[in-house]
Amino acid sequence: MVKLIALYKTPENTQEFDQHYFDIHTPLVKKMPGLRKLEIARITGAPIGEPKHYLQAEMYFDSQDALNAAMASPEGKATARDLMSFAASIVTMFYAEVKES
Amino acid sequence: MVKLIALYKTPENTQEFDQHYFDIHTPLVKKMPGLRKLEIARITGAPIGEPKHYLQAEMYFDSQDALNAAMASPEGKATARDLMSFAASIVTMFYAEVKES
Repeated sequence: MVKLIALYKTPENTQEFDQHYFDIHTPLVKKMPGLRKLEIARITGAPIGEPKHYLQAEMYFDSQDALNAAMASPEGKATARDLMSFAASIVTMFYAEVKES
Repeated sequence: MVKLIALYKTPENTQEFDQHYFDIHTPLVKKMPGLRKLEIARITGAPIGEPKHYLQAEMYFDSQDALNAAMASPEGKATARDLMSFAASIVTMFYAEVKES
C-alpha cells in the first residue's frame, strides 16, 4: 500500500480554506480512480511549540503505479488543478510506502 | 480518533537510523498504553521536486486525553527519551484529529 500525503500549512483565512477544501476539493479527490482510502486530519497542536501545519490528508492506493495512474487521469488532473487554485503556496506533497500498520 | 504524527527528515546515516528506529525505537512505541494503531511509512518521492523527509510514523489513540496519558506514562517517557537520543534534530511532531477516514 502506498499513500500520497498532503500537508497544508495554516492558511491566511481558515474559514475560506475549509469551505473550499471540504466542499470542492475533497469531492474531487474522491473521484480519483483507484483511491482505496482517504484520511483527513486536522492538526491540533504539538508536543513542543506551535505547529506550522493545519491539515493533513492521506490518499491510499494499492501501488505506486496505481497512484501514478490516478494522478495522470482526468480526475487526477482536475484535482491537481483545483489544489493549485487555492493552496499552491501552503501545500507540501510526498509519496510514501506503508511499511507497517 | 487522534494521532501523533512524527515526520523525520532524511538522516545523515540512513542505515544507522533504520537500525535504531526499527530495532529499538519501534518496540518502545508499541509499549505505549492506549496505542490503537501504529502506521510507519517510508517517504519515497514527491510529485514535484525531491522530498526533504524520509519517514513518517502515525500513532493512533482514542482521544487527546488518551494520547496525553500515553505520553506522560513511564513507557511514553522512555519512548521520548529514546527519540531525543537519535533523532532530536530531524523529527517534527504534531497532534492531529482524524476528521474523515
